[in-house]
Amino acid sequence: MADPQCHGLSETCRKGAGKRTTMPVEAKPAVVSEVAPIPTAPCGACKFLRRKCVSGCIFAPHFGSDQGAAKFAAVHKVFGASNVSKLLLHIPMNRRHDAVVTISYEAQARLSDPVYGCVSTILSLQQQ
Amino acid sequence: MADPQCHGLSETCRKGAGKRTTMPVEAKPAVVSEVAPIPTAPCGACKFLRRKCVSGCIFAPHFGSDQGAAKFAAVHKVFGASNVSKLLLHIPMNRRHDAVVTISYEAQARLSDPVYGCVSTILSLQQQ
Repeated sequence: MADPQCHGLSETCRKGAGKRTTMPVEAKPAVVSEVAPIPTAPCGACKFLRRKCVSGCIFAPHFGSDQGAAKFAAVHKVFGASNVSKLLLHIPMNRRHDAVVTISYEAQARLSDPVYGCVSTILSLQQQ
Repeated sequence: MADPQCHGLSETCRKGAGKRTTMPVEAKPAVVSEVAPIPTAPCGACKFLRRKCVSGCIFAPHFGSDQGAAKFAAVHKVFGASNVSKLLLHIPMNRRHDAVVTISYEAQARLSDPVYGCVSTILSLQQQ
């Protein structure tokens, strides 16, 4: 699964291992990582939902830790976390990014225009 | 509030009253209606949600008893009943019909095309 946080963690571990080989006296970080793993930031969705971001979180690849929470807030308000999660589960991995982009667009449009949402864009394009 | 079911009930009551005036021996229906009111069909949303359709149900004016349940099923799956209810509550009465039409359209489009939803229509219109 394409989880940027997992990659980030692996990268940190690899760097730590390399450091230990060249400087054996600094073995402490490796021991610490075994006892208490370096905490990674939760994804934007989990940050918004104030829940633990587990490995393989379905939202993590699409809602980054920095800007993702604000983006997810709109999606959550309009569609709900559970509905979006179920929807994404039924979409192949390589198409989920497009799905999240369109869902976010629809959510933003519905918050801007509660009556017409993104359908206002369709109507105005049809009238052109 | 424009509640078609309330109008339906009033119509039934008026007919009952008229009948009683011309045929006094058939006063029974009026007595029955005092003890146990004639049950009205729940709106499509409440039928789908298997709940009691109360007077002033926010969905009743937009999801009829016949076709409304199927229409609501799509809206429920994509947006969720609670989210749509909250959204409609913040829209003036006279604009809610348009909101329900566009929400239903978006829901149907998302079920037909889980990746792009109605955004596929926007993209194809923009390419024309």
